[in-house]
Amino acid sequence: MSNLSPAQLALPHVARIHAYTPGLQPAGQGWVKLNTNECPYPPSPLVAEALRREIGDDGASLRLYPNPKSTPLRAAIAKLHALGPDQVCVGNGSDDILNLLVRAFCSSSAGAGFTFPSYSLYPVLVEIQDGRAVVIEFDRSMTLPIDRISDSSARAFFLTSPNAPTGVAFSNTEIERVLGAFPGLLVVDEAYAPFARENAVGLLARHPRLVVVRTLSKAYALAGIRVGYALADPKVIGLLDGVRDSYNVGRLSQVAAVAALGDAAYYEGVVAKVIVTREGNLARFAQRGWFTYPSQANFIFTEPKNSRGETGPVVAKAAYDFLFERKVLVRHFPHHPLTAPFLRVTIGTDGEMQALQSTLDAWVGV
Amino acid sequence: MSNLSPAQLALPHVARIHAYTPGLQPAGQGWVKLNTNECPYPPSPLVAEALRREIGDDGASLRLYPNPKSTPLRAAIAKLHALGPDQVCVGNGSDDILNLLVRAFCSSSAGAGFTFPSYSLYPVLVEIQDGRAVVIEFDRSMTLPIDRISDSSARAFFLTSPNAPTGVAFSNTEIERVLGAFPGLLVVDEAYAPFARENAVGLLARHPRLVVVRTLSKAYALAGIRVGYALADPKVIGLLDGVRDSYNVGRLSQVAAVAALGDAAYYEGVVAKVIVTREGNLARFAQRGWFTYPSQANFIFTEPKNSRGETGPVVAKAAYDFLFERKVLVRHFPHHPLTAPFLRVTIGTDGEMQALQSTLDAWVGV
Repeated sequence: MSNLSPAQLALPHVARIHAYTPGLQPAGQGWVKLNTNECPYPPSPLVAEALRREIGDDGASLRLYPNPKSTPLRAAIAKLHALGPDQVCVGNGSDDILNLLVRAFCSSSAGAGFTFPSYSLYPVLVEIQDGRAVVIEFDRSMTLPIDRISDSSARAFFLTSPNAPTGVAFSNTEIERVLGAFPGLLVVDEAYAPFARENAVGLLARHPRLVVVRTLSKAYALAGIRVGYALADPKVIGLLDGVRDSYNVGRLSQVAAVAALGDAAYYEGVVAKVIVTREGNLARFAQRGWFTYPSQANFIFTEPKNSRGETGPVVAKAAYDFLFERKVLVRHFPHHPLTAPFLRVTIGTDGEMQALQSTLDAWVGV
Repeated sequence: MSNLSPAQLALPHVARIHAYTPGLQPAGQGWVKLNTNECPYPPSPLVAEALRREIGDDGASLRLYPNPKSTPLRAAIAKLHALGPDQVCVGNGSDDILNLLVRAFCSSSAGAGFTFPSYSLYPVLVEIQDGRAVVIEFDRSMTLPIDRISDSSARAFFLTSPNAPTGVAFSNTEIERVLGAFPGLLVVDEAYAPFARENAVGLLARHPRLVVVRTLSKAYALAGIRVGYALADPKVIGLLDGVRDSYNVGRLSQVAAVAALGDAAYYEGVVAKVIVTREGNLARFAQRGWFTYPSQANFIFTEPKNSRGETGPVVAKAAYDFLFERKVLVRHFPHHPLTAPFLRVTIGTDGEMQALQSTLDAWVGV
């Protein structure tokens, strides 16, 4: 081992990791930012109020460690979903929760499964764990391949519903069919479920192998404070608590999250507004004759068609570039035939969506 | 795999994990809290100011993801230590950094070494990783066993300096002797270094296998916001960035940390005050005739002697209980002969330390 460099001392798989690429956070003003599925509206006014109260005159409470279990926040989440507090684990963003699930259930022999496309963090987390990844590809229909998931031999399967980047949601009937046939742990990543017609929380009562993951980053407009959570059987929660950092969620994040969850009316207003804007824009893309998946999320996955009626990866990239040059930022996933012909557009304010649509008008030469 | 419970689906080592036990965070008022090495003074007033500015009227910025690399914070840390920004990685508390180091350098074959006693989180992190732990025990002198560390066969060795819970600091001369003989990665956990005469940051320039870990939880009075960092060779930083969560530090934490690091005068005042209080209390314990390690941290590790002149685990526990019943909270580590006869007392305000000493007077029947 003598004279080894730090990189040579690292575990071999770590030196090979391809880090997750977060969406661009542009510097400077004037961007119409529709690339990372953030909420276009501010959080509940109760959040700023609660934060100011916690900070007080001099921030004195910040000298103390936070509640290590986020106990008041777990209680608020449990109440919201009519579950017990022992069915809730809080994470530093839902990414923390997903990481804990991979650490608890995935290894080089115990595979972690996920669909392609879905949240591109999963393969990164499995790579960090030096685990076995089991990838189930969708076809262009994006219908859930229940049999292939069931037969996948994965120890835990991560299903994003509504899916990203398509926006396609899977019904509870489909999810229960997976639970009936797949013998492992089923993690339903519901980051976008507040914008969907249905969610899987009600299935927890009769499925101990189900984990539902949520975030406050989207519908609660709190991507900046990093709070997500798992809902599951108390035994699963106990396992996650065993592998999580003991102070994983700071004082201000806990306070902000409790305040946001306590303002149901504001939350419902934001969600309703995003859905109305989404439906209007889905109609607009249909008018354009662009193939677009039926989104139940706060984004739209659409296949740009240029003035000559062409589609495909090159066309999508051209549309992306045209938008980018005019400071409209969306997301393009160029590395796979299922995603490369599409753009993912976060639902912004009506004004932002108008800017997007006008720029696309200019692109197609309307 | 059919009909397995969630616990049976988990990785075998995960089901056996002994979670880290954080110090008690007592509910209710009136406690003299000297058990978790928090700072007795509030953070710099610039912190509350910066937080209020970030929150603004309506907390609108919180809807956006934080800077994924904590870039402005890395720049501030680099400037503080006269290093390059590529020599800095920021974590969700230094516990996050320690976890990343274990994930990058430790496995069932690549051992992670640490001394006993030292920070009790290390063995938990190694257990979560299903890694091999290499424990080097101090003797009661608490002198650094340089040869045993060098010969330990650990891939990475975690050295707490000043050590916890003893407060004993190791000199740069000793640390360089370890670096000369130990062929692995040496992580010097400097959570308490702001209270010490010396620190290892200056050694980074000529030792690429050295990592220095710091936290804002102690000297910067920001345990509640969870910010810590690693200083190391850019190659090591790159490895940590590969395994960390892409949004591991929230917006408010980044803002608070930058503000705190920017107020050097306030920081120096807090550190100086804690040191003066520590020295006064070290003298007081010497007067009592209690064996006490020479602390360079913000706590004191002392061996209580009862009215009959007896010491030992039972005596220490009796002193702990006597203090606890009078709402003075310190820390007792009963599970090892090296620590069981002692109590660890965080340096509080002069008033809090007076309350502690008076209660101990009552205990010994002065």
